[in-house]
Amino acid sequence: MKDFLSVIDRRASVRAYTPETITPEQVECLLRAAMAAPSSKNRQPWHFVVVSHSAARQALSEQLPYARMLNEAPLSVVVCGDTDVHTGEAAISWVMDCSAAAENLLLAAAALELGAVWTGVYPYRERMDAVRKALALPENIVPLNVIAIGHPAKPPAPKDKWQPERVHYERW
Amino acid sequence: MKDFLSVIDRRASVRAYTPETITPEQVECLLRAAMAAPSSKNRQPWHFVVVSHSAARQALSEQLPYARMLNEAPLSVVVCGDTDVHTGEAAISWVMDCSAAAENLLLAAAALELGAVWTGVYPYRERMDAVRKALALPENIVPLNVIAIGHPAKPPAPKDKWQPERVHYERW
Repeated sequence: MKDFLSVIDRRASVRAYTPETITPEQVECLLRAAMAAPSSKNRQPWHFVVVSHSAARQALSEQLPYARMLNEAPLSVVVCGDTDVHTGEAAISWVMDCSAAAENLLLAAAALELGAVWTGVYPYRERMDAVRKALALPENIVPLNVIAIGHPAKPPAPKDKWQPERVHYERW
Repeated sequence: MKDFLSVIDRRASVRAYTPETITPEQVECLLRAAMAAPSSKNRQPWHFVVVSHSAARQALSEQLPYARMLNEAPLSVVVCGDTDVHTGEAAISWVMDCSAAAENLLLAAAALELGAVWTGVYPYRERMDAVRKALALPENIVPLNVIAIGHPAKPPAPKDKWQPERVHYERW
């Protein structure tokens, strides 16, 4: 299981890619990992838009800040939440569920020796509107992020983020 | 890397545990995995309260719904967000960051052959108040969830959640 933990350690945000494409098998592997995430009441409020070569890619790349790499990435996955699934006080729960799914996808990419990066869309109104328009999302579907994926142009450089002072015992 | 993906597949919500304790090395491993998660602008707005045997455990077990297993779990980790870290339009970003950290922790538990379950706290006002009081959390620290962890009383039973109809190509 050391291997598994090394994948978690090795995951890093990768923003530059080689032109090599992602195979359909790899895409399915990434999406299967995403959908294996836990979700509140197991309601799985997620959808995934796979963008590879369309006008949508161009639009996302141009209209999202910090997202020019999308135009170089052979693949992007837009993780979306269905806001009709959790209602009332629980309405925001799609954010946790879709974040867990997105993290699974990032880890699966690292396991496949691909590089990926989470580009934030939610909660920024302008970015959400841009993605919604580019992908023709229905009203109840909110984009959480755009994950760019490709073969890393150079070896990923993970950060050491261990901060023991963030751990508290028994109480604050 | 098949091993890694099998851990993602194998992760399941485990709510019954043997009395065997979790070692300090395992605790550190879980928390290191959690802190290896990505976060918006790499701001790492997370804190972790490790609860094992205190009055806090009793209070959490009694006051949270669906959380009686906390009193049997040898360890619980309360994942918290610091709401001072992301501000303005980005304020809610601690939820994504802490959810990714929580998912890493759940996966690391599965990799260590431990069983764990995400018990929701945020966004439920009553649950948040109960946890805040039990752990003496400062005003700016919000509890996202309580993760109960132990050695599984029986083999975990992962669900197959693959739904190809949740995948859209190029646009909705």
